[in-house]
Amino acid sequence: MSLKKVHKSALTEKAGISQPEISSATAIGNIQQRRKIQPTVAELVNGISIGNITALSRAITLVESTNPNHLAKANEVINACLPNAGKSVRIGITGVPGVGKSTFIEAFGKHLTSLGKKVAVLAVDPSSTISHGSILGDKTRMEELVKDENAYIRPSASGETLGGVARKTRESITLCEAAGFDTIIIETVGVGQSETAVHSMVDFFLLLKISGAGDELQGIKRGIMEMADAIVINKADGDNIKKAQFAKMEFKRALHLFPAKSSGWIPKTSTCSSITQEGIATVWEIIEKFLTLTKENKSFREKRQEQNQYWMLETINEQIKLNFYNNPEIQKSLNTIKKAVQNNETSPFAAAQYMLDKYFK
Amino acid sequence: MSLKKVHKSALTEKAGISQPEISSATAIGNIQQRRKIQPTVAELVNGISIGNITALSRAITLVESTNPNHLAKANEVINACLPNAGKSVRIGITGVPGVGKSTFIEAFGKHLTSLGKKVAVLAVDPSSTISHGSILGDKTRMEELVKDENAYIRPSASGETLGGVARKTRESITLCEAAGFDTIIIETVGVGQSETAVHSMVDFFLLLKISGAGDELQGIKRGIMEMADAIVINKADGDNIKKAQFAKMEFKRALHLFPAKSSGWIPKTSTCSSITQEGIATVWEIIEKFLTLTKENKSFREKRQEQNQYWMLETINEQIKLNFYNNPEIQKSLNTIKKAVQNNETSPFAAAQYMLDKYFK
Repeated sequence: MSLKKVHKSALTEKAGISQPEISSATAIGNIQQRRKIQPTVAELVNGISIGNITALSRAITLVESTNPNHLAKANEVINACLPNAGKSVRIGITGVPGVGKSTFIEAFGKHLTSLGKKVAVLAVDPSSTISHGSILGDKTRMEELVKDENAYIRPSASGETLGGVARKTRESITLCEAAGFDTIIIETVGVGQSETAVHSMVDFFLLLKISGAGDELQGIKRGIMEMADAIVINKADGDNIKKAQFAKMEFKRALHLFPAKSSGWIPKTSTCSSITQEGIATVWEIIEKFLTLTKENKSFREKRQEQNQYWMLETINEQIKLNFYNNPEIQKSLNTIKKAVQNNETSPFAAAQYMLDKYFK
Repeated sequence: MSLKKVHKSALTEKAGISQPEISSATAIGNIQQRRKIQPTVAELVNGISIGNITALSRAITLVESTNPNHLAKANEVINACLPNAGKSVRIGITGVPGVGKSTFIEAFGKHLTSLGKKVAVLAVDPSSTISHGSILGDKTRMEELVKDENAYIRPSASGETLGGVARKTRESITLCEAAGFDTIIIETVGVGQSETAVHSMVDFFLLLKISGAGDELQGIKRGIMEMADAIVINKADGDNIKKAQFAKMEFKRALHLFPAKSSGWIPKTSTCSSITQEGIATVWEIIEKFLTLTKENKSFREKRQEQNQYWMLETINEQIKLNFYNNPEIQKSLNTIKKAVQNNETSPFAAAQYMLDKYFK
């Protein structure tokens, strides 16, 4: 079975399209061919440890499952994979639609595999539940990378909350790392707080831009420039080269306005073309410089530890909120009390107290 | 009893210094002289409604009380005051120590009272518990305003959490408004998330700066420029005037980088001197323009409704978190599990699940 086929089956599996069973005498004990039978935790962990892509895909599906019975099993798989995880560089890539994220990741990913790296591409896209997979869904734009033996592309998990989607992606990183992928790319579009979520799970955060009508900085989402470790102006080809150079200078100046990063890293600006490949290698060189600096001054490790702590607390905080707001009595009263607050009939704090008394009584 | 005396008694009351009882035959029914007897809700509300400063101070003390028995009474007072509240303009003022906040508020407040306004000055300073009242504590720098009959100055509430301090200040705004103050100034220093808290309780947010060594924009706290409705360069006097003008221009350019505000307001930059009074009137003119625009396009009212909703949900969310983290069993396990996460022995999500199971079992 070729890797291409495996990727396809991972995609169809996600889409809920059942595949014809492969009947084969050698099938026994082979996870790939036991689609209907749930593999055990040990089977998944062993499969992942030897880099079996089907085992990886099934483990990610388990992590993404909304079935509460799968949660304990998923946690077992993750915990068993932890000792083999963490040895990658995690790169977040964001940019508005139209900036050429898919073509950039295709070109960048191919460059990385040409350097002997194993690249996994994941996505955080909380809008995908509504738009049915807006990013990484259209694989045609990554057709070279999808065929690459050393690349693994997984569409965004669906879910109702950003927290849920982010958690699933965060755990998928661990699984990909345990399966031997040493470069993890997390793609996101600027929906809600998704950049913040991605920023909190990566080592390096890359903002992809294109040169515009001259006023490059207008319309950049709040806070996003502060998170960027590099701003790369894509589509710097043909007539665009001059404009891209200008945009690069303007971003360089603007980046200067933000407070220095605690890691000591000074965010870089660069231009590239996903078509001519010009500047693609430079992006990786920037990331290598970042890794040298932050591993030397230990901020790489510190950041990961902080991120782990952050995710634990975030998960707790999200869950206790969900528990409150999903409480039937709370749901019944919340809209009424919101209106009372809006009409100035009660103070926000008295209203909050009223709701809390209902819950904790 | 002069207003100055009343202010002093509010301050000493806060500091826990008991005052000698004033013995007087006319004391009966006079809240001012019944310090040891708790006034009723009706007495406080009536006192506030006729602008009695002592009633206002005592109601604020009630709101600030950490005694759980006072909470219900405080909520009653607030709710009774609500119909008379809301008719002010709420101005947030922030700036790092040394920028001249106190002298600016003194000059600005005096200008406002000279226009016939009634000015209340409150503070959000979560550090005051540790530093024992770092802002608004030193009244000597506002000695003119403190003597002004139409001004009321109240030091920051103390409290362990920013949420707690902010809630108390937010409710004090309501009380001051009900007492007839039409201009509320909320001062804060950039400690933790205090600017965000203040930004969420005011109509207009003013960032106070001074001209520096030329590179004005370095070291500005994340997110703060985006919140500003105006940036005012203070200490624009003497040799400083040119530098202040230059700083103003640089901030004007920088403000241009941020996305437009939904209210349609374009943040302004200005210079002033609290000593020569030059430019103080301009600050108020800017705020008046803001009020005209946002009241016309209804964004003023919409923002207040959003803020009310925000405060209700924030209070709920803070309280349910406190309930979780103050749980003795959670406290016992949290440090152990944090270490396990740090040492990669368990995933952040499995750890969170473990803690949640303990709490919700």
